[in-house]
Amino acid sequence: MKLKGRLYGVGVGPGDPELISIKACRILQLADVLAAPSSSVEGTDIALDIASYYIKPSTEILHLPFPMTSDRTVLEQQWDKNARSLQERLDLGQNVAFVTIGDPMIYSTYIYMLQRLVKLGYDIETIPGIPSFCASAAVAQIPLGKGGDAITIIPGDPQKVLDAQSGISGTLVFMKPSGHGRKIAHMLAQAGYRNATLISHAGQRGQKIWRDISAADWEDIDYMSIIIARKDEW
Amino acid sequence: MKLKGRLYGVGVGPGDPELISIKACRILQLADVLAAPSSSVEGTDIALDIASYYIKPSTEILHLPFPMTSDRTVLEQQWDKNARSLQERLDLGQNVAFVTIGDPMIYSTYIYMLQRLVKLGYDIETIPGIPSFCASAAVAQIPLGKGGDAITIIPGDPQKVLDAQSGISGTLVFMKPSGHGRKIAHMLAQAGYRNATLISHAGQRGQKIWRDISAADWEDIDYMSIIIARKDEW
Repeated sequence: MKLKGRLYGVGVGPGDPELISIKACRILQLADVLAAPSSSVEGTDIALDIASYYIKPSTEILHLPFPMTSDRTVLEQQWDKNARSLQERLDLGQNVAFVTIGDPMIYSTYIYMLQRLVKLGYDIETIPGIPSFCASAAVAQIPLGKGGDAITIIPGDPQKVLDAQSGISGTLVFMKPSGHGRKIAHMLAQAGYRNATLISHAGQRGQKIWRDISAADWEDIDYMSIIIARKDEW
Repeated sequence: MKLKGRLYGVGVGPGDPELISIKACRILQLADVLAAPSSSVEGTDIALDIASYYIKPSTEILHLPFPMTSDRTVLEQQWDKNARSLQERLDLGQNVAFVTIGDPMIYSTYIYMLQRLVKLGYDIETIPGIPSFCASAAVAQIPLGKGGDAITIIPGDPQKVLDAQSGISGTLVFMKPSGHGRKIAHMLAQAGYRNATLISHAGQRGQKIWRDISAADWEDIDYMSIIIARKDEW
């Protein structure tokens, strides 16, 4: 039996080809197939342009159309179709790099591929990237958060300002929660955040993931940890 | 007259030495002085460890103490002192790389150095990095935001959950606001966000920064733009 390939979700960073990570470069160099979302939206071409610097000449480019529509049925059908295109390559044993501008876990089309292929048991690795808001803060010399500030990231629609103001928030991210772990876990449970995951030492030696933070042993969890909480299943 | 050196704020990423950007590596290789915040907190050593892979042998390492205290007077005095240490090196014409884990604009000690040295007119460049929450989302395979979700980043203290729920938020970041620019600008003004900056094509050809978004020509601003808004001066 032929071994299946691995799917990589590769964040190429905010647009400057130098702001890609060394790891993303390495993954692009080993990819058999470069999968690039294509749409009428500008950012998708930039991701492909940046990735093209780093791939080997033999790498095949697979364009996957992501239509700009709010019709959920049309979207779901196309996402299913794109996921099947990726599956075909993975089943052939090819390693596929799906590229996104910025970070793959922040408003990218990769998320819809990940959702589908995780369920089917494919081997998947996501390579984080520098989000565009970090690059923007850097060039404008504005801190995003200092001291006790919260940072709220809102996709385009202004209605979301109102939602954020009234406390309806898709995802809560707690940085360095260890000193207040039990308290945060309790508050999240009270507030209906049923999906709260604790990640310690992400991508480093000693990495640990608790899918249920009520089971975390807070005395054992150090500074370099993160809680990601949602009310719904993603 | 001797030319002054440049201060670089360098994000080395979330902890995996491969998750540093190519640009950050290049800057570390040209630095005369590597300034590393040192404290009892774990992350600071990781930043220095990662940076040490990439510097040239002659690079001097300057340890700057950042005490872990909530006493504002002690903190301010130490920040002033550290800023003076950096100034001395810059005045000698040395290029100084101040390293931070993650991204320099997200809860880093670099922000306090930037605040002081910007006011004094020093030449400063910030190199963004991959934040730890992106690396955490990647390894846990949880999207941070999809569709219309907002993402709220909260530093450790659980009180901040309450603040976020009641709409008191340090920084609002709007991604891809161009389609709703005027509406967002109006809502921000109404809600008391007096410091709203629009950044287009950060770090790329055609980069533009509007310090006053009411002056932005929205017909001319495309998809790849970001608004960063605060109620107060930082």
